[in-house]
Amino acid sequence: MRKDGRNEAELREIEITRNYTKYAEGSVLIETGDTIVLCNVSIEDGVPYFLRGQNKGWLTAEYSLLPRATQERNIREAARRKLSGRTQEIQRLIGRSLRAVIDLNKVGEKTIWVDCDVLQADGGTRTASITGAYVALVDAINYLLKEGQLKENPLTDYMAATSVGIVDGKPLLDLCYEEDSQAQVDMNMVMTESGEIIEIQGTAEKYPFTRDELNRLYDLAEKGTAELIEMQKLALVGE
Amino acid sequence: MRKDGRNEAELREIEITRNYTKYAEGSVLIETGDTIVLCNVSIEDGVPYFLRGQNKGWLTAEYSLLPRATQERNIREAARRKLSGRTQEIQRLIGRSLRAVIDLNKVGEKTIWVDCDVLQADGGTRTASITGAYVALVDAINYLLKEGQLKENPLTDYMAATSVGIVDGKPLLDLCYEEDSQAQVDMNMVMTESGEIIEIQGTAEKYPFTRDELNRLYDLAEKGTAELIEMQKLALVGE
Amino acid sequence: MRKDGRNEAELREIEITRNYTKYAEGSVLIETGDTIVLCNVSIEDGVPYFLRGQNKGWLTAEYSLLPRATQERNIREAARRKLSGRTQEIQRLIGRSLRAVIDLNKVGEKTIWVDCDVLQADGGTRTASITGAYVALVDAINYLLKEGQLKENPLTDYMAATSVGIVDGKPLLDLCYEEDSQAQVDMNMVMTESGEIIEIQGTAEKYPFTRDELNRLYDLAEKGTAELIEMQKLALVGE
Amino acid sequence: MRKDGRNEAELREIEITRNYTKYAEGSVLIETGDTIVLCNVSIEDGVPYFLRGQNKGWLTAEYSLLPRATQERNIREAARRKLSGRTQEIQRLIGRSLRAVIDLNKVGEKTIWVDCDVLQADGGTRTASITGAYVALVDAINYLLKEGQLKENPLTDYMAATSVGIVDGKPLLDLCYEEDSQAQVDMNMVMTESGEIIEIQGTAEKYPFTRDELNRLYDLAEKGTAELIEMQKLALVGE
Amino acid sequence: MRKDGRNEAELREIEITRNYTKYAEGSVLIETGDTIVLCNVSIEDGVPYFLRGQNKGWLTAEYSLLPRATQERNIREAARRKLSGRTQEIQRLIGRSLRAVIDLNKVGEKTIWVDCDVLQADGGTRTASITGAYVALVDAINYLLKEGQLKENPLTDYMAATSVGIVDGKPLLDLCYEEDSQAQVDMNMVMTESGEIIEIQGTAEKYPFTRDELNRLYDLAEKGTAELIEMQKLALVGE
Amino acid sequence: MRKDGRNEAELREIEITRNYTKYAEGSVLIETGDTIVLCNVSIEDGVPYFLRGQNKGWLTAEYSLLPRATQERNIREAARRKLSGRTQEIQRLIGRSLRAVIDLNKVGEKTIWVDCDVLQADGGTRTASITGAYVALVDAINYLLKEGQLKENPLTDYMAATSVGIVDGKPLLDLCYEEDSQAQVDMNMVMTESGEIIEIQGTAEKYPFTRDELNRLYDLAEKGTAELIEMQKLALVGE
Repeated sequence: MRKDGRNEAELREIEITRNYTKYAEGSVLIETGDTIVLCNVSIEDGVPYFLRGQNKGWLTAEYSLLPRATQERNIREAARRKLSGRTQEIQRLIGRSLRAVIDLNKVGEKTIWVDCDVLQADGGTRTASITGAYVALVDAINYLLKEGQLKENPLTDYMAATSVGIVDGKPLLDLCYEEDSQAQVDMNMVMTESGEIIEIQGTAEKYPFTRDELNRLYDLAEKGTAELIEMQKLALVGE
Repeated sequence: MRKDGRNEAELREIEITRNYTKYAEGSVLIETGDTIVLCNVSIEDGVPYFLRGQNKGWLTAEYSLLPRATQERNIREAARRKLSGRTQEIQRLIGRSLRAVIDLNKVGEKTIWVDCDVLQADGGTRTASITGAYVALVDAINYLLKEGQLKENPLTDYMAATSVGIVDGKPLLDLCYEEDSQAQVDMNMVMTESGEIIEIQGTAEKYPFTRDELNRLYDLAEKGTAELIEMQKLALVGE
Repeated sequence: MRKDGRNEAELREIEITRNYTKYAEGSVLIETGDTIVLCNVSIEDGVPYFLRGQNKGWLTAEYSLLPRATQERNIREAARRKLSGRTQEIQRLIGRSLRAVIDLNKVGEKTIWVDCDVLQADGGTRTASITGAYVALVDAINYLLKEGQLKENPLTDYMAATSVGIVDGKPLLDLCYEEDSQAQVDMNMVMTESGEIIEIQGTAEKYPFTRDELNRLYDLAEKGTAELIEMQKLALVGE
Repeated sequence: MRKDGRNEAELREIEITRNYTKYAEGSVLIETGDTIVLCNVSIEDGVPYFLRGQNKGWLTAEYSLLPRATQERNIREAARRKLSGRTQEIQRLIGRSLRAVIDLNKVGEKTIWVDCDVLQADGGTRTASITGAYVALVDAINYLLKEGQLKENPLTDYMAATSVGIVDGKPLLDLCYEEDSQAQVDMNMVMTESGEIIEIQGTAEKYPFTRDELNRLYDLAEKGTAELIEMQKLALVGE
Repeated sequence: MRKDGRNEAELREIEITRNYTKYAEGSVLIETGDTIVLCNVSIEDGVPYFLRGQNKGWLTAEYSLLPRATQERNIREAARRKLSGRTQEIQRLIGRSLRAVIDLNKVGEKTIWVDCDVLQADGGTRTASITGAYVALVDAINYLLKEGQLKENPLTDYMAATSVGIVDGKPLLDLCYEEDSQAQVDMNMVMTESGEIIEIQGTAEKYPFTRDELNRLYDLAEKGTAELIEMQKLALVGE
Repeated sequence: MRKDGRNEAELREIEITRNYTKYAEGSVLIETGDTIVLCNVSIEDGVPYFLRGQNKGWLTAEYSLLPRATQERNIREAARRKLSGRTQEIQRLIGRSLRAVIDLNKVGEKTIWVDCDVLQADGGTRTASITGAYVALVDAINYLLKEGQLKENPLTDYMAATSVGIVDGKPLLDLCYEEDSQAQVDMNMVMTESGEIIEIQGTAEKYPFTRDELNRLYDLAEKGTAELIEMQKLALVGE
């Protein structure tokens, strides 16, 4: 049994609220346990310089922690006038993961901005961002389809992300912050509905880990992302 | 009658939610109409360099718009690597206004951070930030008193802020974005419970305005801030 | 009687020198007491991106303190690689105030740069900047008219700015630095020749102030700006 | 058979030159095929602020491409005045990987700087950086031991890194740039001598990949890193 | 005969105004023809980190062009958020040149800031800066001596700077902007009273130049700096 | 006799390796004693904004020290997010010197990037950069001629650079770091094959120097650059 009463292969409670703000083409507030992320998807005409004239779209993501999303207040990156390495790593991961399930050739010269702003952080903010942003992306695509701005749906698959890790020698699904800070292995996985891998990132925080441990973490992640995709589908039912 | 059915001297609907996030010493979500601001107050030990050794506290504010808080997505200031003049002006106003109702000599060498992050912007974000931040500040001070970190309450007065303006020749209270963008005079006022002025900032957007118009705007602002202070008090009743 | 022998409603001595430098289309050195500001107005073809194709002009202002304009040397903003909030607030105020008396639709696609560089600061640098810049703007507009680059005069009114404040309980006109640093209320007003308001910015530095005090400060500011406009007119007589 | 004549499980030719420059405590030039990286390890007294007083060391890495290390010249990050996300991601990976094989409690309050500068890039620069930096780290540690600045060897294991990927449906070891740019899966693995995982990072560039493909890539990486560790050992024989 | 009536070995008219501003320990406005530079010298307690504890002083210089000091307005470096290479080159030259005539061991742990701000630029701004800053430095040192903050005078020599160049094949002393922009050789020299060299910087703008030409430029510079030193001495007579 | 056995007018040993990297149009590794610089010349279509439409080329240089090129590690300028004054001064010197021997009117709208990256620094890095970059430039020009991208050779002369200085009262050719750090005069000269001056930069590090000393330094530099040009020619023989 874990601190919060979950068993090893159990996700935290998930809440997915669509249309959280009124301006964004897709706007989702995702809560996984005490982690809360606002995922807004915006559509802009035009693409960055390096893609012009190719009749292709672009999708890019930005991620930020509000200053008091964390236990101790963290300094705003705007005030520091630079993005931390951690932030850049996470926003690259979010963008890359979402680009894996969209055919940008079907989007035309549009830019899809994905903004993930963490209101409260209790572990797993990057995977919650991906899982929530996917739902907001579906909403934004549906908006474009309804408006006639897209002819066909460019999305190619469902997808979700979760964290897994080894704490006190035990593989666990969906680490909260306290577990994460004690983990000896920390792994983030982004997977499709059929359990294929979009991204796997595993780090030995304290000791190297074995192939067998990798396999056990894989099993947990497969189970977790499958459940998350179910919840995404439920949230997407009905307007 | 205004677009949204209000009369000239009527505030938009206000919702004040305390304890919105779990880490901050004071955390308030304020909604005024469709403007939504998360106001978090954090307490840190120590003061900036220029105040050290004076046994005084410091209070400073930061303000930010989430990228899709607005109708068109705005570029993150962290990505631009600089704060806009507008942002700096607003955060200086928030900090100055709150410092006017707190005796920092009673706070000891602590820094009070006030973070106002706009989730959705529909006019009046700076005044909503001040009004909400005041409530979060009360909560943070009460926390310090309860923890025994403060001996006496350093707050000296109630306060709230509102915008007033002249649209189509008519003085109006609490402008929404659409009204604000057509206003010929735009004024922000921060006032105490007794109707005294903490800050007055009025700008002729299209034509200079007269002393008589200033007086009529003053009347509206006095009424509006008095009502806002009533709502702050209601929100602060009970834990 | 004040430290420098003035009465409460008396401006400091003003000197306005036109054509101070030889390159700028308008170049004014304004001295108000020991505050010295060089106000240069430059005309450039073209407008910023957001205005292109609208056949309108643009006016923008920049403000800077030379490093030893002040009692203690201040670090150059170029060396810090950022503009302070104070600088941005002031340059926005200067630009906004001047835009209130010029019809940019009559200027064509030109940018009017207003550079206010403070050589020596003894209080009231932002209001001296506005008052001096107005004269330099008149000279630059006259230059454009003479050169046939403008058909009609786009200026719509005279204007000047002054500071007022409450020191030791007494409302005073045109504060020097020493008075300013002890003021309990500090207010800047930009007004037209007819006494209408372009901008009003009042701040309670120590205690909130009353409506009655606001009215007394208004009276002083009205008197002061009227006198300043007289001096601008005198300076503008003859080439 | 691959373009350059290798079979699927074959590394490119490796050259490890120790003591490449004369100042650094450890200095290795590593060439893997046409990829050339200079890995310098520097020792400095003191640790960053957040570690002071804990009697622990710190290891941090920086990575950079020379402007013409690539086919097209890339703009210097110093000229852009920011680090790209890619650079930050890579230098965080290098640092994290090396920290996994050193016990910083045995280092005292010293900072170990690892600088990986890519002179020529033909794929696999981040894994070559890690493999080369490890050898330079061994040299720097041996220098400290010989100088009596360390009492015992803080290194806990051998380690090396390699890239693997799927190109045209086939799993390949050690991708060159041309292969890498066509890969549908791209994976970097950092492993210990016993084949345990320090870091695994796999990305679906075109299509999601299966667990079976992951396993085949793992096999290749295990073989490759084992061979690289043999070459590191050979290079380290003798002074 | 040159455009402005001077012969080849003739300086432009020089005006040196001491005590131009009231706060700086040394404040000189130097005008050489139409080039106008404000040179302020400020004294601060303390030295930069790398000099602490050595009981030595430090002297450093900063240089800036006001935006409309030039024929076309130039963008502020504070707005660009970086110093140009030209600015950095010039301020390094000014600082190095002045450090050559002061014994910083006699100054104690003080920092001497030299600020050269160009109000109007018509060629030779860097040499005018040096020549004017030297006079301001003398005033600042005399102030410190009078205040008893220095025991003995740390200045070791007189010095001045001038530009020389070859225009249309003819060596000329003290180029104005128009001459400078056509020069085929451009040389700046900083010299002592006895005609020794502190700094020589010569550049072939169009064609390489010969040793003979170097010698003729040297002669001109020697004459020019000797005359400038006479004018500095005259300016320094009397308070 | 000097520390390293050279006499006063003797260069350090020189090694010039052409085609050091495979991508650059010209790539030279130059070693002068223990100073090692990689000089890469890249050709890009197009010119900077200020030159467009003039059918002229542009040549610009960048210079950087690798972090551990020096005895103590120096912080990367990319990490500091600004270029030091020293770096900017050197890269301006390299660019200006090379532009003196190329007729950019014969290059068309191309940009020639010269990148000088110092792998190891033992004095004279800027002059080694110029001497090596000249050879890389010849290779890049020959490449363009061979490819038919240029009709005629735009190079107008041979050129090389060396440092000279006065150490312990004695004029020396080609200072190593240890000599340089003790020099009382430090001078860099860039000269053509015929001994004419492209650039002369002499600084009194400790005491002003005399005209006679300047002449003796000139003699040494003339001898040194003539020898360097011989070595450049030898290196350029054959492919």
